This record gives sequence, C-alpha cells and structure tokens, in this order.
Amino acid sequence: MVSRWRGLVVERVLRDVWVISGRAGDDPFVGDIAVANGRITHIDRSTRRPVRPTRAVLPGLANAHLHPTPALLRTALASITIDDNDRSPLVGRLYEALRADREALQLGARLALAETMSSGATCGCLHEYLAPEVAARQAAELGFPCVVAVHPGEPGWREVLARVRDTGAEVMLAGLNENDPANTDEALRELAAWAGELGVRVHAHVSETRERHEHMRARTGRTPVAHYREMGLLEHLYAVHCTAVEDEDVELLAAHDVPVVVTPSSEALLGDGIAPLAALREAGVRVGLGTDGAAWAGGEDVLRELTAAALLSRAVGGPGALRGGEVIELATLGGARVLGCESERGSVEVGKRADLVVLDLERPGLRPVLEGPLSTVREVIAFAATGADVIETMIGGTAVHRRGGTPLVEVDAVQDAAERVWRRAGGDRARTWL
Amino acid sequence: MVSRWRGLVVERVLRDVWVISGRAGDDPFVGDIAVANGRITHIDRSTRRPVRPTRAVLPGLANAHLHPTPALLRTALASITIDDNDRSPLVGRLYEALRADREALQLGARLALAETMSSGATCGCLHEYLAPEVAARQAAELGFPCVVAVHPGEPGWREVLARVRDTGAEVMLAGLNENDPANTDEALRELAAWAGELGVRVHAHVSETRERHEHMRARTGRTPVAHYREMGLLEHLYAVHCTAVEDEDVELLAAHDVPVVVTPSSEALLGDGIAPLAALREAGVRVGLGTDGAAWAGGEDVLRELTAAALLSRAVGGPGALRGGEVIELATLGGARVLGCESERGSVEVGKRADLVVLDLERPGLRPVLEGPLSTVREVIAFAATGADVIETMIGGTAVHRRGGTPLVEVDAVQDAAERVWRRAGGDRARTWL
Repeated sequence: MVSRWRGLVVERVLRDVWVISGRAGDDPFVGDIAVANGRITHIDRSTRRPVRPTRAVLPGLANAHLHPTPALLRTALASITIDDNDRSPLVGRLYEALRADREALQLGARLALAETMSSGATCGCLHEYLAPEVAARQAAELGFPCVVAVHPGEPGWREVLARVRDTGAEVMLAGLNENDPANTDEALRELAAWAGELGVRVHAHVSETRERHEHMRARTGRTPVAHYREMGLLEHLYAVHCTAVEDEDVELLAAHDVPVVVTPSSEALLGDGIAPLAALREAGVRVGLGTDGAAWAGGEDVLRELTAAALLSRAVGGPGALRGGEVIELATLGGARVLGCESERGSVEVGKRADLVVLDLERPGLRPVLEGPLSTVREVIAFAATGADVIETMIGGTAVHRRGGTPLVEVDAVQDAAERVWRRAGGDRARTWL
Repeated sequence: MVSRWRGLVVERVLRDVWVISGRAGDDPFVGDIAVANGRITHIDRSTRRPVRPTRAVLPGLANAHLHPTPALLRTALASITIDDNDRSPLVGRLYEALRADREALQLGARLALAETMSSGATCGCLHEYLAPEVAARQAAELGFPCVVAVHPGEPGWREVLARVRDTGAEVMLAGLNENDPANTDEALRELAAWAGELGVRVHAHVSETRERHEHMRARTGRTPVAHYREMGLLEHLYAVHCTAVEDEDVELLAAHDVPVVVTPSSEALLGDGIAPLAALREAGVRVGLGTDGAAWAGGEDVLRELTAAALLSRAVGGPGALRGGEVIELATLGGARVLGCESERGSVEVGKRADLVVLDLERPGLRPVLEGPLSTVREVIAFAATGADVIETMIGGTAVHRRGGTPLVEVDAVQDAAERVWRRAGGDRARTWL
C-alpha cells in the first residue's frame, strides 16, 4: 500500500509517536517514521505541537537465546535447579515424549516464536535441543529472521545443518555444558576447528551455575572462559548466561569481543544467580537479552525481560546500574550486535530495515508519560510495559503480529499436545521430579 | 441476581475454574465456587470430566503497602536512590506542586487504586504522604477496603484521623524513617503511646536501606528493630521493606509477631537490595507484598509483584526459596494476615467474603497448564500472569472491575493533571534531579 507523505512516496507512516532509537544515549522525541521497501526512509520530529502521543515505537527486539520446543512444557521445570534438570528421570521422560511427537515439537516451537514475536521480538537465536529443523521451519513460516544452533558431532549433523540453512536461517554450532562428561579438551578443540571451517560461532551456556563453573576449574585449573581461550574457542564463542563469571572472565570476554547473552528471568528463577550485566557493559562487552525458555521461566516475552534485567541488576548495583534507556538498548541494538546484524537491525534509523514495535501507552498502567529532558517514557516502557501492550510487530515493513488479529498459534492445539506429552511421560501422575 | 445451582439459591457461580485456595500447602483443583450475600457459600470439585478449565480463581490480592497520590508521577523518581529522593530539590518541588493541586491528588490516588484493583487487589494499606483524606475518599468511592496511615504529631492530626475513619477506612499511624532528624527516642516513645491509646499499628519503613539501618545503629548502638523494641514500639509495629534487616532482627520480628510487608520491585529498582523473604517466612513472620509506588517502581500491579518476589528471592536462594504456591500465598493469605483480616479475607474458603480474582488463562503466554499432582497452574500464574490477564475483580461478591468495562480512571485527565504538576515543578525543563 503506497501513499504520499510530505510529497514523498511511502508505504507506511507512523505519525506522532514517541520515537525510541534503541541507543541509550539518544533522547526520545515525538515524531513520524516513514517506511518504504521494507526500510525506514524518514524520521522527523513532529511539527504540529502540542502533540500528545499515545504510542511509542521501538526497534524490534532481539530474543538472543531461546529454547523453542520445550515451551510446550511451560513452567513445568521451574521448581528444580538447572542441574537437577539434567538428572531428573521425569525431565528425561518428558524430553523423550516431546522428541517422539512431531506435532508437539511443531506446536512447542510455534508457541515460543508466536509469544516472542507478539511481545515485540523481530529476530533471535534459537538454541534447540530436540529438533533444530522443526524450529527453523516454524521460524521460516512465521517470517522470523533467526540463527539456529545445531549440535555437531552426531552422525548426519552436517545434513541437519544444511537443511536448517535451507529454511533461510543462519546457523551456529551448539556447545556443551561445562559439567558434561563429553566436554573434553579434545571435543573443545574439535568444536573450535569446525567453527573456523564453517565460519560460524559456537553457542554455549557459559558459567551458567557456580557448580558448572567450579566443575571446569576442578578439571582444568582455569575458569571456563579462560579454558576456552586455551582451547582456541574464545574467538568463536557466543556465550550465554555467564551468571558465575569472575572479573578476569569479564576482561577476557571484552578483550576477545565475545558476544554475551543474559536471560535474567530464567537465571533468577532457577536460582543460578544474577549475571553481572552492568560490569559486562562497562567493560565494553556487547550484551543482549534472551528469554531462555518458558519451560523454566515464565515465557518468551522479551519486554518482561527488560523489567527482570532492571530489577536484578539494580537490586545489587543501585539505580545507576541500569537506566531505562540502557535496558532498552540491551534488547534492541545490543541484541543486534550480539547477533552481528547491527548494520541492518536494532535501531530506529534511516536506511535500516523496518523492524519495529508499536506500543500502546493508553492503559492506566502506562500513564502518565512525562515530557522534557527527564522524560519518563523509557522508564515507563522498561519497567511497566509487557507483551500485552504491543499493538504491532513489524519485520521488514510487514506486520507479522497485530493485536486483535489472528493469533500466531492455536492455543487449544497447544493444550492438547502438551497434555499428550505430559501423560506419555507420566507427568500427570508423578509427585516428585527426582 | 439470584439463580439456582444444584438445588441451592446462589447469586453467582464460577464453574469449572482452577481453584487456587491461597494456602501454599493446598493443591489446586478444578471446581465450582458459589457466592451468595457477599460470601463464598460452596466450593466443589467439578464432577463433569474431563473439563479443560480456561480460568483460574484466586483469593483477592492484598496490596499491603502503597503510596497512592504520587502514582501521578509514574517512574519519574526511578533513576535516583531513595535517599537522593529525600534530598532532591526537584522531588521537593514535585511534591509541593502535587500537594497544591487537589484534582491532581485525587487523580493520582485514583490511578493507583484503579490500577491495583484492576490487577486483582481487593484490599490494601495506603501509606499516603500528601493527602490521607483524599486517598481514603477515593478508596471509599471505588469500594476498596483499606487501612490508611495518618502522620501524627502535626496540628490537627487527630481530626484528619477521624475524617479518614469517617470514610470507612481503618487507620494506622505513620512512622518516621531512621535517618529523619525528627526520629528521636522521645518521638518513638510518643508514637508507641499514641498507638497504644488508639489501639492501632504504626506503619513504618524499617531498615529500608543499608544507609538508614546504619544511621540508627550509629545513633543508638542498636539495629532499628532492636531499638524499636527498647522504645516499646515493636508490639505496635507494621514493618515495611526490611531490606537491610539482620538475622537477629528476623528473630525479633518473629518473636513479637510483627507483620512485615515487602515491595520487591521498588526495593530492587531503587537499589535498596533484596529483602530476606524466605528467611522471614521460615522464621514464622507473617509476610505480605505491596507495590510501594508507581513513582519509583513500574506500577501498582500486584500480580507482577509475585513475579518480582520470585525472581529476586530465587536469584539469591535457589528455586526452593519460593515456590509458585508460596508466592501466591504471600499476596493473598499472607497479605490478609499482615492486615489482620485473615478471618474474613485472603483465601478461597466457604464462609469467607467473596473477594475473588478471575484470571483468563487463554492467551498463548499462559498456555499450556498441566494437570496432576505436579500441576503447573500456580507457577504459570506466579511467573507469567499480569494485571492484563484479570477478567474480573470481585469484592464482597460485587464485581468492582471487569475487563473491557468502564475503566476506573480516565487516562486523559490523569495525563493533563500530571503535565500540570510536572510543569509547575519545572520537571519539563530540568536536566538533573539533584
């Protein structure tokens, strides 16, 4: 749909909105954003004054670490630790039951992607344990640009990787947890070699728990990050969680420009602790946010992850640790930087792709918004907005979600599939996890 | 409206809903709840099976610490510390401008109350700095049962207290912060005497920050809680925050049955730390939750406070620190206990008042819910539901909020009043707070 705006041919104009650029240092302002050919073509301050904006436009959010298919088991694993999770017979049976049910896998992936897109995510990184091809296919169907991590080493893994690439997704290699017996020096060197050969990153949970962190120190005499450097892996690493990293690790991550993704809700709910977001940012590490997984945490709503990041970082570091604009940057430009797509995505800027989130500021819980140099709009969004406030998510100028429109996933089918998996694994009768 | 249900005359039946009692030890089940004459008259397990419930019913939530009128300045004070807050000239000017504008005070109080009621709160405790009578009047108009704290000592305070009581609200006396120069031993003894004479509690911020905690230790040689015992105040105390309390304080609070209210989001966002919720509960202290104030934190949504409590407590204490049912108990029966109304409110129980919240579990972000002894319904609610999921809030059997119905506050009027106060205080031109 083409129209004219100030004498120019454009496809879409968002008028008199709060414009939040995605860069922490930029002041928000009230203006118009025009879109044509999938890109942002004009951004202007509003000339008609006074204007009282009731909508805000942010760059599309990046969900930089997400386990899609287990979303079908929402919160089911939230009452055990991440290490119990590896050891629990019921968790093992649930994964087996899910893996054996292709429709359930599809619906789990679709649920996670639908939820994250409807909460404003416009790109992401999928760490899929059970079915990378299924997750990549669902993302392609929904028009969600993403990187998909594929587990290397098993027979046929290169074919899986090729088929994931065929869906249009980029790929990474999935790494191993520090306490996995398969995580030998030989395996780490092999992983680094494959990553170099393929020119891709290795997506790994790094120092996710104190236990895993210490496990590697006991084995190698070094922290995980320091050991990955010795193994030649650090230059290829895409590090997730980093809850238990130490000061020397933060320096190494910065010196090697390792992208880091923090998933505050899930790390907190599992008791893994609070990642040093402020210290990582201060050291110059590029940092993004992810939701991890609805199976452990509440869900895939990246906007709620902003609040979680602020609560946890400021609880330990004070209100200066993370201001509203900085929180928003983490999930937008920060996310694009960790994914390596910041030239195309992550900020509201002329020439970039029109990946945009339109937020409704009309409900009482988001009012009032105060104007001026100390405008509260970024804090209102960072501390109070949720996915429920998203009016529209736009990817490359196309609305992929509109509030009140057709939902991206059918909830009754999700419930059916989840009950089937739950019964097959014996979850409906179990009284304990362990 | 009277109808018949299983041969009985009832006014309202909530059929085939997830029943969450509010007691952490009770398993949720699918059933029917009948209401007549403002009370719960029957609770039965559903007989028609299989039933797939899409709604959950909880006891109405208690918002046990809330500053109403400053909600008009949503998030405006979120980037400074609580102690800067006392010292900032701009904060002082904002409070003066708000205090001078009766319509703004009314709208601020109404905004806070409307937001908390529409997010499921059915009773609460209002700590109102600027205009206790205005806040009490707004609560009465909205039908919100509450206790209102009145600052004693100033000329005419007993008349204010009487007028607040005339609105139907109960009262408390407001205490002083530990670092307030007026907070002398003489003032504390006087406060204890007034509380005894009036038979009411003293609502005080206790050990809210490390700085305040240490301030009192420097002055008295004791922690605030220990000093309040010496001053005869502990038996009258209603203690809020307790972020910096020590182990010996927790024991004293338990031994003296002092109700404690924690406001996790606001304490975290202000950098005051993480209150030892799990330790307080373990010691047998009765603990409830509050939202504090939208001026500092995101808002007055008590359902989001459940998630904040879980995130922060589990980040430091592991997933066993606070399970889904325990989080829900804090905001329901726990809140009723701190307010002293647990014989009438706080649980879904035959004979209690029909203060109920009906939650919609239909959106993808709250699906699926798994059934059985390990049912996920409480975790889904505690970690993922927000005020946006409330279909209805019922107080004494009457719907005080229905989703899609007339909003309890007019947002344009709120925005007008806030802009007026902001301009009068110079907030629209200010570049720094201090």
